[in-house]
Amino acid sequence: MHILLTNDDGIYAPGLRALRHELKKLGTVTVVAPATEQSAAGHSVTLLNPLLVSEVFEDDGKTPIGWAVEGRPADCVKLALLELLPEPPDLIVSGLNAGSNAGINVIYSGTVAAAVEGAFFHRTAIAVSLEYDQKIHDWPTAARHARTIIEQILAKNPAAGSLFNVNIPVLERGPIKGVQVLPQNVTPYSEQYHRRVNPRGRTYFWTSPDFICPEPHPDTDVTALAEGYITVTPLKFDLTDHMRIQEMQTWEWSV
Amino acid sequence: MHILLTNDDGIYAPGLRALRHELKKLGTVTVVAPATEQSAAGHSVTLLNPLLVSEVFEDDGKTPIGWAVEGRPADCVKLALLELLPEPPDLIVSGLNAGSNAGINVIYSGTVAAAVEGAFFHRTAIAVSLEYDQKIHDWPTAARHARTIIEQILAKNPAAGSLFNVNIPVLERGPIKGVQVLPQNVTPYSEQYHRRVNPRGRTYFWTSPDFICPEPHPDTDVTALAEGYITVTPLKFDLTDHMRIQEMQTWEWSV
Repeated sequence: MHILLTNDDGIYAPGLRALRHELKKLGTVTVVAPATEQSAAGHSVTLLNPLLVSEVFEDDGKTPIGWAVEGRPADCVKLALLELLPEPPDLIVSGLNAGSNAGINVIYSGTVAAAVEGAFFHRTAIAVSLEYDQKIHDWPTAARHARTIIEQILAKNPAAGSLFNVNIPVLERGPIKGVQVLPQNVTPYSEQYHRRVNPRGRTYFWTSPDFICPEPHPDTDVTALAEGYITVTPLKFDLTDHMRIQEMQTWEWSV
Repeated sequence: MHILLTNDDGIYAPGLRALRHELKKLGTVTVVAPATEQSAAGHSVTLLNPLLVSEVFEDDGKTPIGWAVEGRPADCVKLALLELLPEPPDLIVSGLNAGSNAGINVIYSGTVAAAVEGAFFHRTAIAVSLEYDQKIHDWPTAARHARTIIEQILAKNPAAGSLFNVNIPVLERGPIKGVQVLPQNVTPYSEQYHRRVNPRGRTYFWTSPDFICPEPHPDTDVTALAEGYITVTPLKFDLTDHMRIQEMQTWEWSV
């Protein structure tokens, strides 16, 4: 099996390194990842600027890891499939992200966007994230959990283009309680900005680090993760509100 | 009615100016838009950097238009609702974008992301885009079409948080054939990169401008737009594949 591994924390992030170590147990791993951190890049892509690419090696300076791309996570997947890989991979994995990507954070996430881009190419794609608690992460243990979840998904032979979002809870909170397959929570986070004035007198705002989801729906990725479960959510990239479309087709429209 | 207007082409883009002119017929319009072009920004947001803000005025230097934000389209909507506007707007409009946002381009679009962000805040939000053909656009006519579609949507009193994606076909191709409510096409675009070497010997890739959707599904936004219809697609931001979740909940999972 040939696995493309990417992320949004950058090619030198410890989460990617730990996950690469685990994924090598499943097959050949090629990394194509952003040269620098791209957190909250969403599904942005680079249209107007060139994408510089560098081959990256292990510490021996000889064993190739893959390519660093000075672009977005979704750019990495496009470039990998259209230019850099000799043939399409069997699996695309994005992660292991530093910080959960649950609830509406799925929409902001460069980690998930990279997996969505893989699904555009009809590849099985899995985004994997580790909940963040501002402590040091046990990346090797989290990557082992990620690999076992990935193995269980692959054992079911998902159809080409299948897309999954996996979140692993903070490991320091206690043993993982199990695995739950649940929908994405869709209630908003509460956010705050700090309003300040720069030395030249211009106003600026800086988002506070405390993203809190005050009222998550029960039985969603957000609630189960908080309870200590690994969550798995099958995703799709059709944003159409199909429940609504038929009613709207009966409206009288005019130009 | 108080309308928040944003876009991804930047606060000085002609499409925004034309749409502002039309929306003023419906109510008070406040613009909070990116200072610079943010095409294909997707739903990226700015977490690590400060967001500089400048008040912007009409050519008389006195009549306020709103604020330019040195950030992403989604940042603009967040800042507007959390900091800049005295009270939440009744409606959020994003556009008028230079270039259609149909099919999977919906996922890359900063224009649509701004509207999605508005829906996170339980506001009615409408993204509006004009198909691009590399000619000069008739922005005033396109903006009139946008306004009449927006009026028809508002006449149905959509529930708070309703989200719509509107595309207007190239006007120079002939009279608009009508309005169609259709789902987002989900088949991929064919893309190409030009591979080059920079003066320092590093490889770079540059995406070609020809995005072609070779096999769109019939009766989708992409096909109807190509036929000369205005398309309206109700969107949602729950990416969960609900068709799949029940089957996956029966799988035997282990940690």
